[in-house]
Amino acid sequence: MPATEFDIIDHYFRQPARRDDVVLSVGDDGAVVAVPPGKQLVVTTDTLVAGVHFPENTSAQDIARKSVAVNLSDLAAMGAQPAWLTLALTLPRVDESWLEKFARDFIDTAAQYGAELIGGDISEGPLNISVTAMGLVDADAVMRRDRAQAGDAIYVTGTLGDAAIGLALLQQDSINDDSSAWLAGRLNRPEPRVDFALLAARCCDCAIDISDGLAADLGHVLDASGCGADVRLDSIPLSPQALAHFNAAGGIDWDVILSGGDDYELCVVTAPANEAQLVQAARQSGTRLSRVGEIMRRPGLRFLDAGGETRALANRGFEHFSS
Amino acid sequence: MPATEFDIIDHYFRQPARRDDVVLSVGDDGAVVAVPPGKQLVVTTDTLVAGVHFPENTSAQDIARKSVAVNLSDLAAMGAQPAWLTLALTLPRVDESWLEKFARDFIDTAAQYGAELIGGDISEGPLNISVTAMGLVDADAVMRRDRAQAGDAIYVTGTLGDAAIGLALLQQDSINDDSSAWLAGRLNRPEPRVDFALLAARCCDCAIDISDGLAADLGHVLDASGCGADVRLDSIPLSPQALAHFNAAGGIDWDVILSGGDDYELCVVTAPANEAQLVQAARQSGTRLSRVGEIMRRPGLRFLDAGGETRALANRGFEHFSS
Repeated sequence: MPATEFDIIDHYFRQPARRDDVVLSVGDDGAVVAVPPGKQLVVTTDTLVAGVHFPENTSAQDIARKSVAVNLSDLAAMGAQPAWLTLALTLPRVDESWLEKFARDFIDTAAQYGAELIGGDISEGPLNISVTAMGLVDADAVMRRDRAQAGDAIYVTGTLGDAAIGLALLQQDSINDDSSAWLAGRLNRPEPRVDFALLAARCCDCAIDISDGLAADLGHVLDASGCGADVRLDSIPLSPQALAHFNAAGGIDWDVILSGGDDYELCVVTAPANEAQLVQAARQSGTRLSRVGEIMRRPGLRFLDAGGETRALANRGFEHFSS
Repeated sequence: MPATEFDIIDHYFRQPARRDDVVLSVGDDGAVVAVPPGKQLVVTTDTLVAGVHFPENTSAQDIARKSVAVNLSDLAAMGAQPAWLTLALTLPRVDESWLEKFARDFIDTAAQYGAELIGGDISEGPLNISVTAMGLVDADAVMRRDRAQAGDAIYVTGTLGDAAIGLALLQQDSINDDSSAWLAGRLNRPEPRVDFALLAARCCDCAIDISDGLAADLGHVLDASGCGADVRLDSIPLSPQALAHFNAAGGIDWDVILSGGDDYELCVVTAPANEAQLVQAARQSGTRLSRVGEIMRRPGLRFLDAGGETRALANRGFEHFSS
């Protein structure tokens, strides 16, 4: 029975190295890895806080999977191949069953994308899962926020709004059929677009993870690149489940779709000359990809309805500490 | 007035890149760095939780400095040159004055050791500061826990027990003179032994950060290396402030010194042939270094008093979740 942090690490998190670039893994003051020549290292950190990033009653497996996925989604947005992860886990108490499920799903999810847990830290305190993910890119071949140019096309992967609807349904205790369960699954079990991103990075140099909602995150691209965008609402991809939900609720709520957040999809911006290759990348990786608008010289992010009118959003996206 | 996580990052944590190996810093989905040819990457993560790793009323500056220092101490124990840091900061609320002090001292402390903040994440929740530090070592030249051999000499840097005494004095509200303030400073403002470690790594291949106390951490070296050790209590380095404290308290408390933890000193183990060079490394970096014992074939960690008798410890070191 593991009792202390060292026992927990030994018992649940130490595993044989799978990647041959891991020189020294879990169990020393630090891990040691070898970055291959010609590659640069991409580093990202994302934290999940109980009650903020996931409902308190979320399963250990879903928390584990999500804590890996949200970080791999950031690597994907940079066009980086996932390589290594560290985990800083703060736990209120030692719950053997929780830890066993969490550790197994964390390690398995990472492995599913070729990444390996190489180190971490376990502390006592309110539940907080902070992951740092490291990935590899060809030197100077990352996708960045500041590379959009007027005339570029704007694409998004997957469907938008599902996670925000799933959260609302969970909060209303309304997970009572396949459709609502699927929507909740989009919240709790996001799938980072790693395969697509690695192919897309060959023809695109601008992308962003739209986990705070397309409105906020495309806004970051526009701010960083110094341009504007026109996005057509009738091009925004919606799942059949989301459509059915909105039909039952009396109409589409664009705030939920564009600002609800927690969709770990990518927004990719590319020059017209590369669009065919980008579409091919989506086909090859089995990823739904939708062209939703264009980058414009005129500043501002405009969402246009079918009549070409600009539609105002009530809020721009999920932001911690916003009122 | 920064209001959201994006504003906070922009306002307090974005700074011009200082290191020319930082390709892309704070502000995208991930940071991008270049690892020089011939170097391996050392990665470590350490979290500070309010009320667990530091008293609740610790200043923003001390928390910032400590969160950097404890991670750089782990890099030092591996013999790695500090390079890059990411920060996952979970905050209960936006306190401008706290954030300004925290960010400035975090960035300044990192810079003092040549390291740069390249990314991170800000979330809402109970105060939790999780830092991932990355450093560089010559390929296959790290100091590891599993490299001790019978006949090796055991050294420690600095003085032991100061931080544990400082914590006890803080808890008793007994910081009332220069000596007690110095001891509390050893708890709140640890100085990682980076300069010494980089020199030591040239002649040693075994070291550990003894932040959980010498008893526990040297124990980890012995477990990993499959050997034992004899440590002489009269060789353990004590500060004049610790000695004065124990004199006033009626005698030396070896449990506090060997198991109190939070001394961010290093224990370095080396073959007799390298001892002269190690002592020179200490002199060159202005670091107090004490030879405290030897690695033995016989398993077990023995603390010997002046008469050569083995002294039992009440507990082995600070461990989260231990009873």
